[in-house]
Amino acid sequence: MSFSIDKSLNEIIDGKTKPLKSLGRLEEIAFKIGKIQNSIKPELKNPHIVVFSADHGLAQLGVSPYPSEVTRQMVLNFVSGGAAINVFCRNNGISLEVVDSGVLGKEPFPEEVTAKKIAEGTKNSFYEDAMTKEQLNLCLQNGKEVVRNLSSKECNIIGLGEMGIGNTSSASLIVSAVLDLPLSNTTGIGAGFGVAGIQKKVEILEKVFSKRFSDCDFEPLSILRKVGGFEIAMMVGAYLQAYEENITTLIDGFISSAAFLLACKIEPKIVSSSFFSHASDSKGHRYIYEHFKMEPILSLGMRLGEGSGAAICYPIVKSSVDFLREMASFESAGVSSLNL
Amino acid sequence: MSFSIDKSLNEIIDGKTKPLKSLGRLEEIAFKIGKIQNSIKPELKNPHIVVFSADHGLAQLGVSPYPSEVTRQMVLNFVSGGAAINVFCRNNGISLEVVDSGVLGKEPFPEEVTAKKIAEGTKNSFYEDAMTKEQLNLCLQNGKEVVRNLSSKECNIIGLGEMGIGNTSSASLIVSAVLDLPLSNTTGIGAGFGVAGIQKKVEILEKVFSKRFSDCDFEPLSILRKVGGFEIAMMVGAYLQAYEENITTLIDGFISSAAFLLACKIEPKIVSSSFFSHASDSKGHRYIYEHFKMEPILSLGMRLGEGSGAAICYPIVKSSVDFLREMASFESAGVSSLNL
Repeated sequence: MSFSIDKSLNEIIDGKTKPLKSLGRLEEIAFKIGKIQNSIKPELKNPHIVVFSADHGLAQLGVSPYPSEVTRQMVLNFVSGGAAINVFCRNNGISLEVVDSGVLGKEPFPEEVTAKKIAEGTKNSFYEDAMTKEQLNLCLQNGKEVVRNLSSKECNIIGLGEMGIGNTSSASLIVSAVLDLPLSNTTGIGAGFGVAGIQKKVEILEKVFSKRFSDCDFEPLSILRKVGGFEIAMMVGAYLQAYEENITTLIDGFISSAAFLLACKIEPKIVSSSFFSHASDSKGHRYIYEHFKMEPILSLGMRLGEGSGAAICYPIVKSSVDFLREMASFESAGVSSLNL
Repeated sequence: MSFSIDKSLNEIIDGKTKPLKSLGRLEEIAFKIGKIQNSIKPELKNPHIVVFSADHGLAQLGVSPYPSEVTRQMVLNFVSGGAAINVFCRNNGISLEVVDSGVLGKEPFPEEVTAKKIAEGTKNSFYEDAMTKEQLNLCLQNGKEVVRNLSSKECNIIGLGEMGIGNTSSASLIVSAVLDLPLSNTTGIGAGFGVAGIQKKVEILEKVFSKRFSDCDFEPLSILRKVGGFEIAMMVGAYLQAYEENITTLIDGFISSAAFLLACKIEPKIVSSSFFSHASDSKGHRYIYEHFKMEPILSLGMRLGEGSGAAICYPIVKSSVDFLREMASFESAGVSSLNL
């Protein structure tokens, strides 16, 4: 069966009215989505970006130049449609789902926000584990549930994004732990530090690393529980469920990729249904996609998060499927084929 | 005035609810289009891809693995909507204009094709100049007229593409002549040669180069007249006119870029309103954008032509303008700004 779909897809792609292989990456994307859907006429249905949002106890130590209240303010900005991800989703035909995974503050968000709050931010990982085992399990379940719900609405392509002041710190700790890299390699400008800020951030993260991971088995769920955050843990669940449901998944930037890295430790086959949408300008990002020997589709120097890279990438993924579905073949169009 | 628009655009871009510079290339694109339109709220109106199509006398010598009749067949494929460029335009909200610049065959095309036929293909540049001075002037006028007509329909963004069996040969000759590069550096797989085919193509082009350019003044119009083709010459006219009309211009791949290179020799300011939409997989392409120190927006290993790279790039350019027009500012959204 697998051989048969591979062969059929290759024949159809090569039979389109274009020089052989001349659509480059678009042909690879079309082929992979054909495989995910086990179809020679794959279709992208009801695309969604999900933005998991949560706060981080570690942010109290100044690992971000922005204060924690910005997480809540940005969720409200998502609701009112003014953030980058709103603009990109609106204009690229993508639906947006914003999830409160654990934003600071008791006041409930408007009902458009999916309520999955675990707590008002994680604990400060400088002093203690970011979350309990129960919280972690709940995160994974919630992430899966969000994707199951989308799947029940016929959605078969998602991009996973996040919002959370301090979450590049969790991501740096995760990536350094999983890929055995010094924190100076995985810690960057974040939301906008200068050189001195980055240096201070690295020093704090090195302390967190030795405190949290001194007795760690480095299992993916242990890492996740110790450094958080809730939004990253929900993304891990979401990646796992998306694979189960044959949903094409667009990984966003550094934080989304850190969650993907953990999810792959749990289920390595996830790579077969996922694309790195863009090479983020965040310092540690390249270690992740190089680890998987996967090249991001775009490289635009972006480092915003929110799923923005996935949303920008979506039209290219769609064009890939479109050419496979809609282009004429040499035969159907009466075009002379190669004359070598 | 110019200082003022620069400053205003930078302030507005930096004031959007995102970490500073975190939209990377999208910010540069938005800034440049704001400059082109001299507006802090630029708008992309009525986008078009124009595909100039023509045949080449040199194709008789086997510089392409496809026979010349494919040019006409592909124009008919454009008309019936089955080519890659049709799919990409249709699904990205772009209008497509196909121009007969000089396709072989007397039979007229359906009326959807803009009739600007100069002759049934250029002369064979192995034996004589590809076109006369009169033909060249007519090409330039026709290219300008096509763009003037689009501008009169409120179009303010175009991508320039082409179709013409044999036209990578003209492009290689042009790029080698303008940038003083050996033909082996600018001659690639074209529509699909193997190693032996490329070697034969280089040998033919080297002969054409010495025959045509032995007494050449290397002025852009001399080069163009000697090696053609009609579609490339019309693209040169189109680039010049697009600049005159402040139309944002998306350069496609190798051939479109060769025309751009010539147009820039005539009016260097064109760079201020143009983007390299993608880095083509065609061998000589990088010399062109490196010459201008301009980085293509995409790099997807495409080498199809037809304006396909420009069409794939358009949604990203649109997203750039969209964020500038639609995103909230820190002030308007009530989001706390940087806390350094």
